[in-house]
Amino acid sequence: MTILKPKALIFDVFGSLVDWRTGVGNYCQTVFEEKSIKQDPLEFADFWRAEYQPAMNKIRSGNRGYIPLDILHRENLNVILDHTGHASQFSEVERISLNHAWEHLPPWPDVLEGLSRIRKKALIAPCSNGSIALMLRLARYAHFNWDAILGADIAKDYKPKPDVYLASCAALGLEPKEVMMVAAHNNDLEAARDSGLMTAFFPRPTEYGDSQTEDLEASENWDIVAENLVDLANKI
Amino acid sequence: MTILKPKALIFDVFGSLVDWRTGVGNYCQTVFEEKSIKQDPLEFADFWRAEYQPAMNKIRSGNRGYIPLDILHRENLNVILDHTGHASQFSEVERISLNHAWEHLPPWPDVLEGLSRIRKKALIAPCSNGSIALMLRLARYAHFNWDAILGADIAKDYKPKPDVYLASCAALGLEPKEVMMVAAHNNDLEAARDSGLMTAFFPRPTEYGDSQTEDLEASENWDIVAENLVDLANKI
Repeated sequence: MTILKPKALIFDVFGSLVDWRTGVGNYCQTVFEEKSIKQDPLEFADFWRAEYQPAMNKIRSGNRGYIPLDILHRENLNVILDHTGHASQFSEVERISLNHAWEHLPPWPDVLEGLSRIRKKALIAPCSNGSIALMLRLARYAHFNWDAILGADIAKDYKPKPDVYLASCAALGLEPKEVMMVAAHNNDLEAARDSGLMTAFFPRPTEYGDSQTEDLEASENWDIVAENLVDLANKI
Repeated sequence: MTILKPKALIFDVFGSLVDWRTGVGNYCQTVFEEKSIKQDPLEFADFWRAEYQPAMNKIRSGNRGYIPLDILHRENLNVILDHTGHASQFSEVERISLNHAWEHLPPWPDVLEGLSRIRKKALIAPCSNGSIALMLRLARYAHFNWDAILGADIAKDYKPKPDVYLASCAALGLEPKEVMMVAAHNNDLEAARDSGLMTAFFPRPTEYGDSQTEDLEASENWDIVAENLVDLANKI
């Protein structure tokens, strides 16, 4: 087996490194309890996340200029507060506060050890659809130690558009073939491979809860298929 | 005295945090000795740095599209190798290698303690004309621990153009008035203040060697005038 030696690894974050569903759910649960709101917080997290792709699609298609994800999350919060019937219970200031849920997401158990070991071998950076503002606050919360924050804000567009991967490689001063994209989502890796990057996959089978049906395994022969981030650290 | 509480501090790097003249000089000295080239390495560093502003001016004025500083340094190296008569002794590969001098610059003695203490109080990021690629490698070398890497690459333009400061604040998700620009160069702070940022100055009286005449002291009533970065950490 050839051991791949990427000069940098760039990471999907939501779902791949952090458990957004539990994190957003816990953050909202605290707020709902304070306000005596009857609402399943995990269902609320799912509703909020369901607005994620449609909001980005308007930007990917060029129908809307680039808007950082923090602002899309904030707009989407209005939609789901209306949808769940809680809109009258949240002031503007309270909505801004609730939006910080996305900066308070727990890493999966293997992530801190895995990132720490990978960082001894290569440069590491998030290549997320989250903005720099969101990613750096999440990094403070989750104790991620990045070399830089790359991704959507660098390209002013959203994955899986090729520019996001290519702009991230360019910002590292590296060729795409020197960089490995790491994700628990097959479509993210498809796009990265199409742009010339190396690819590494590991599954996060409960990202969407126990009934998840997608991304339970690698859909293609990615350069590395690992069990988790510690396993990936062993394989590079 | 009012204590200012910036939510983020952004830093000039070359000269303010690292001693580029000594660092580039030492890096070049090793290479010159290997090649038995008679050349004062500090003079060579001064020649190289002297090409810095003219190269950026073409981009600031709009006469040339944005080019990251790594590439400008590499172009400028050709100019000074010609100028000093050493061009025939450096292959393309050797020039690329010598260009990494700018990633191997020692921090001034107060910087690591100062940054570490400031990072406990606020977000910190470089706002340099150096690219992300350059800044992250310099950070690895000098043991800087940034929240993100901002500056020229984010804005695709060079300080002191306002966009560089404003794009850096926007990337942090903050208003300019919530952010403090830190530099040992008065003109950098003038531009930051004009864009609405708080300002902090400390002198680096030997950045350009013992005969330095500029930036020996604060030229205006910056929000904070400190002795060095540790002193600045005490004052926020």
